Amino acid sequence: MVKIAIDAMGGDNGPSTVLAGADIALVRRPELTFQLFGDEQAVLPLLDNYPRLKAVSTFTHCEVTVQMDDKPSQALRKGRWKSSMWRALEAVKKGEADVALSAGNTGALMAMSKFCLRTMAGIERPALAALWPTMRGESVVLDVGATINADAQQLIDFAMMGGAMARALLDVERPTVGLLNIGVEEMKGLEEVRVAGQILKEANLDHLEYVGFVEGDDIGRGTVDVVVTEAFAGNIALKTAEGTARQIGSYLRDAMGRTLLGRIGYFFAQGAFKELRQKLDPRASNGAVLLGLNGIVIKSHGGTDGEGFANAVEVGYSMARNGLLAKISQDLGDYHRAGFVREVAEIVNEGAP
Amino acid sequence: MVKIAIDAMGGDNGPSTVLAGADIALVRRPELTFQLFGDEQAVLPLLDNYPRLKAVSTFTHCEVTVQMDDKPSQALRKGRWKSSMWRALEAVKKGEADVALSAGNTGALMAMSKFCLRTMAGIERPALAALWPTMRGESVVLDVGATINADAQQLIDFAMMGGAMARALLDVERPTVGLLNIGVEEMKGLEEVRVAGQILKEANLDHLEYVGFVEGDDIGRGTVDVVVTEAFAGNIALKTAEGTARQIGSYLRDAMGRTLLGRIGYFFAQGAFKELRQKLDPRASNGAVLLGLNGIVIKSHGGTDGEGFANAVEVGYSMARNGLLAKISQDLGDYHRAGFVREVAEIVNEGAP
Repeated sequence: MVKIAIDAMGGDNGPSTVLAGADIALVRRPELTFQLFGDEQAVLPLLDNYPRLKAVSTFTHCEVTVQMDDKPSQALRKGRWKSSMWRALEAVKKGEADVALSAGNTGALMAMSKFCLRTMAGIERPALAALWPTMRGESVVLDVGATINADAQQLIDFAMMGGAMARALLDVERPTVGLLNIGVEEMKGLEEVRVAGQILKEANLDHLEYVGFVEGDDIGRGTVDVVVTEAFAGNIALKTAEGTARQIGSYLRDAMGRTLLGRIGYFFAQGAFKELRQKLDPRASNGAVLLGLNGIVIKSHGGTDGEGFANAVEVGYSMARNGLLAKISQDLGDYHRAGFVREVAEIVNEGAP
Repeated sequence: MVKIAIDAMGGDNGPSTVLAGADIALVRRPELTFQLFGDEQAVLPLLDNYPRLKAVSTFTHCEVTVQMDDKPSQALRKGRWKSSMWRALEAVKKGEADVALSAGNTGALMAMSKFCLRTMAGIERPALAALWPTMRGESVVLDVGATINADAQQLIDFAMMGGAMARALLDVERPTVGLLNIGVEEMKGLEEVRVAGQILKEANLDHLEYVGFVEGDDIGRGTVDVVVTEAFAGNIALKTAEGTARQIGSYLRDAMGRTLLGRIGYFFAQGAFKELRQKLDPRASNGAVLLGLNGIVIKSHGGTDGEGFANAVEVGYSMARNGLLAKISQDLGDYHRAGFVREVAEIVNEGAP
């Protein structure tokens, strides 16, 4: 049994998407149970439409809903203790649920998660990790939005947490890890990226294989299982890839629709185009993981539909099922036993300007 | 007449690509003349194959060739005064050529350009600007590789230089400009991006329209004519987009080739696929511009072919023809006359941590 605590009010369409998604997920994973948090007038009438889901769910009424445009500080002020987002996180904190899931305001979710669950021992800042479809399968890319200007130590933490996530989700024993960098020789990246690379190389960790720097085009190529970067560049890379996929999709539609031959070709190749659409379907990779907290927190895209939300539930399910938190603790433990590494970090950081 | 000084040794294939490309460019723009710099044994025998090109070119023998893997400091040490790269830049410095063009080592080209041509008055650091194909046409994106960790003042300089480039190349009178940022509410980007945005908004410049922050997916959408960012995120965005395009191309080939119906569809829609290939052809957007120097310097991809190199020549041609340098000076002048702006910058920068 895996217990998922859900902020039923999160996302552009709130409970209608959330309940539809949870119901789809339940068909795939009958061992799921749910704790739903939200406004009773918005949630309960809808829940009656999903008897299967209702049978394995508890519902808790919450007076406050965090809005998509609330600032994190606002959200904390008005929503701490009593919002549906907070209560879902709290269920994880109390051990009543294995996973907290929200499609709500990302900044608010990050702030509340940190406040409610606290970061794991040895981790300063959380990271938001995305599953990125690649030519080889999938890779973990982090940080795509939580900690901008991460320093060398934080990048190393991200490498370990991303490695643990890859072990939990991608069925690899010793995932390959690369630090995202730029190829221009003169300056070969940022000081903190260079330092993190040097330390990861020397640490020679049991649970991940550090392979060096990778560039932006290595992400889609699937060169490594885990791509590590700070959140500003990571978020821009993620959004740029999404934009490029949309752009090419639009080119393709235009080109196929413009001429009769194109339309005939499209008719014959419908199956191929369907396959392509599935490969590029952003719903299939929905569900980012907030790593580094004392609990599993999943962020769904706010604009997704039931199918996409079900995928976010599935990510939470796999994380809980495969012991994400234990894997992260294990990796951090290995790393801290390799005490010299942290010393190196301190020395190099002191030496930096 | 536009005079192009070319480092004939630059690029993965050196003179064979360079000469083929210059010859193609010459057919399109018969008013071009060339100054070729390189090793006489490598260049002169090949040049005989291009009588049309030879007729409008001078050739200067250079003893030293900067290698693709030379560090910039190495390149400067061995190649200053006497390498083909340096001599091409020097031709611009002396006013003998309008544009310097190299497909060689990017870091070396940036270092030599700064050393040889110096930055324009009021510009601290150069920026590398790319032409990015979008759903609306093309946008200028900078910095994609020259100045990492640009501060607020440098981002403002980039906005003005990118705006001038858009005016010179994209036929817009008052280009729209956006600062690349991330959408996560909690931290809404870096301090320097916020400060630059505030100042650009208050400055209300004649020659560009600052529209605010844009995100990674706005680049391909063509939301603005000019996207401004520091070089780490910019280079990663560029490479990520290239990688995503390759990835989708590979998905598409696989999907169309796997079934008979897919292959039949492909047969009928060949024209549409050709159109798509042309839209995605990286050669069509080859030729990045090193902005902020006392002279026009174009960087071609090292791995391109003659067609791609010809496009880089074309970019140089347009820049010279449309008075890029005068446009940048004009914009900087306007900006400096708006003296209060720089004061604001100083105040805000002092206030920053």
